[in-house]
Amino acid sequence: MVRPAPAIDAIPATTPFVGPEQLMRECGLRELVRLGANESPFGPSPKALTAMRDELPRLGWYGDPESLDLRDALARKHACEPAHILVGSGIDDVMGLAVRAFVQPGGSIVTTRGTYPTLNYHAIGFGARLTAVDYTPDGTPDLEALLGIARREHPSLLYLANPDNPSGRFIARDDVTAFYRALPHDTLLLLDEAYADFVDPGELLTPHLEERLIRMRTFSKAYGMAGARIGYALTAERNVQVFQKIRLHYGINRNAQVGALASLGDDEFRDRVVAETARARAAYYALAAELGCASIESFTNFVCIDMHTAERATRVVGELLRRGVWIRKPGAPPLDRFIRVSAGTEPMRRAFAEALRGVLAEMPA
Amino acid sequence: MVRPAPAIDAIPATTPFVGPEQLMRECGLRELVRLGANESPFGPSPKALTAMRDELPRLGWYGDPESLDLRDALARKHACEPAHILVGSGIDDVMGLAVRAFVQPGGSIVTTRGTYPTLNYHAIGFGARLTAVDYTPDGTPDLEALLGIARREHPSLLYLANPDNPSGRFIARDDVTAFYRALPHDTLLLLDEAYADFVDPGELLTPHLEERLIRMRTFSKAYGMAGARIGYALTAERNVQVFQKIRLHYGINRNAQVGALASLGDDEFRDRVVAETARARAAYYALAAELGCASIESFTNFVCIDMHTAERATRVVGELLRRGVWIRKPGAPPLDRFIRVSAGTEPMRRAFAEALRGVLAEMPA
Repeated sequence: MVRPAPAIDAIPATTPFVGPEQLMRECGLRELVRLGANESPFGPSPKALTAMRDELPRLGWYGDPESLDLRDALARKHACEPAHILVGSGIDDVMGLAVRAFVQPGGSIVTTRGTYPTLNYHAIGFGARLTAVDYTPDGTPDLEALLGIARREHPSLLYLANPDNPSGRFIARDDVTAFYRALPHDTLLLLDEAYADFVDPGELLTPHLEERLIRMRTFSKAYGMAGARIGYALTAERNVQVFQKIRLHYGINRNAQVGALASLGDDEFRDRVVAETARARAAYYALAAELGCASIESFTNFVCIDMHTAERATRVVGELLRRGVWIRKPGAPPLDRFIRVSAGTEPMRRAFAEALRGVLAEMPA
Repeated sequence: MVRPAPAIDAIPATTPFVGPEQLMRECGLRELVRLGANESPFGPSPKALTAMRDELPRLGWYGDPESLDLRDALARKHACEPAHILVGSGIDDVMGLAVRAFVQPGGSIVTTRGTYPTLNYHAIGFGARLTAVDYTPDGTPDLEALLGIARREHPSLLYLANPDNPSGRFIARDDVTAFYRALPHDTLLLLDEAYADFVDPGELLTPHLEERLIRMRTFSKAYGMAGARIGYALTAERNVQVFQKIRLHYGINRNAQVGALASLGDDEFRDRVVAETARARAAYYALAAELGCASIESFTNFVCIDMHTAERATRVVGELLRRGVWIRKPGAPPLDRFIRVSAGTEPMRRAFAEALRGVLAEMPA
């Protein structure tokens, strides 16, 4: 009898996220207002769309396994060398590589309880020990507590999302820098900057291309290409060479590379997306206030709105889905009493607002 | 200091394949006749192109993590259930998952020396022990020798490509079935059927959806979507559930799923590609005969042509590249004296023929 490897056999069966397509099947819905996965409703830049459309007939060719042109352009954008850049099939892919490369089975990872969970998925998948630290009461990753654990445990890897998902909070550059400098020198900081494009560039970490720091970026959010699966890491050349030994060299869609490259040449579109996303956040803040709910100031393309209890938040998500509006909610305290809604277009925001007003009107406070 | 995990640190630095984009940079070429990676020069089906073009504006959405629609269509095609199908980012991705899931570090894998090398890449990457068996003198995987080793070693996994790459040979269904039945019951047969679409369906294995067999298929070859990165495995439901614990759930490009689904509805296009590929093979056989070279009858979209010695084959590949024609060659005896050329369009075939005639005319026999 063929048995899975014992380490794999021991992993409990899980599905990280239930996708909207499955929810639609289960609920018999033909359409859904997609506000659950922090996807960009503005899609890819027109320049990216044109470039991808023009290149579709050449999809018979494998993509460049070294992403030479894209890495050249990214190196110009980040004032570094192509040798500092690893391109992957989105940040999820890069995170898996980071865990596999830098955490041996039984090794230790420190993260925040309830933050973006795919890091946990990879940690479990590669047999790491996870230690999770609670958010501060206002939903900010608790740098002091993280640092305390890191100094005691000397974890192989510490994960921090900044801006954070699902809270939307942003930790100022100087605080992150001080935190990074204070970490044990045998701990790798895996810094998830998926939402960095929504932050003023002047407030972001300046590149530290050091061996114990991996910064991850994506084309999924401000660039509107989540479906393309393309992201990258900025780090020391040594780390890129380590990834080179284990990454899927032909894993990235050719057209994703084409679109990402063209996107980098359309700052005007990205700026418009960022501005429209700010309008969406403001609309959600106003809606929350109108409904007597608190909301968390967000530096991302989503906003958390307080439903007072976790049970009520779960019910609201379910009731919104029945009305054809798909959102998600944080899974762990103190954020689990919130719902999280992604920035939508104006009509999507209106649909969400109407549905939420209806749901709350029918629900005891 | 941050060190990679010891098992990863121990992996020698390698690049599985040098891509044509890098060769073009190194050689200062602006164009290349791409006949090196068994890509389809016919590209995706027109129906797939239309579907992908129409869906590009929705690339802001993640692809369905369960590939529900595509798996439904594949289940109909293969007369099985969606639960028997794992969709991955090409066969390379599926192979990595199979090694990771079913071969523990230090576990044993048996393969053929010189066959498709990405299996070896994953084996090394996940710390497996590789045992490679030579091809028979005519370049066919040596089932008898593979079986002998398997019975002695009880490997966790045995890899067989049928049709084989790089030889192009095809082992008849009854022989593969007998081989599979004779394998130890604790050995998983990983059957790479990337080129199965070029074989008469009646000559293929009927589905054995058993725990100790994983059949891998791709949209990269006859379907002309190598750049999309999408392939799948047919296997027992238990195995799909094992993969569900470790696969990258959001790893597949949304548009790749759209194109693959549309491709399945265009048998006429696929049949034309298969017929044109047969014409390309015939043209290469005729060219080889004209030049006094032997060739191997192929059941794929490529042909191996005998250059008499490995050194000469290597030189021919280099000289063709200088002339702007990119092919590859097998790396291990007995096939390393061959060059391997992919099926091209008629103009591509002509460019290859002219270049090869020129190269051989200047080269002592």
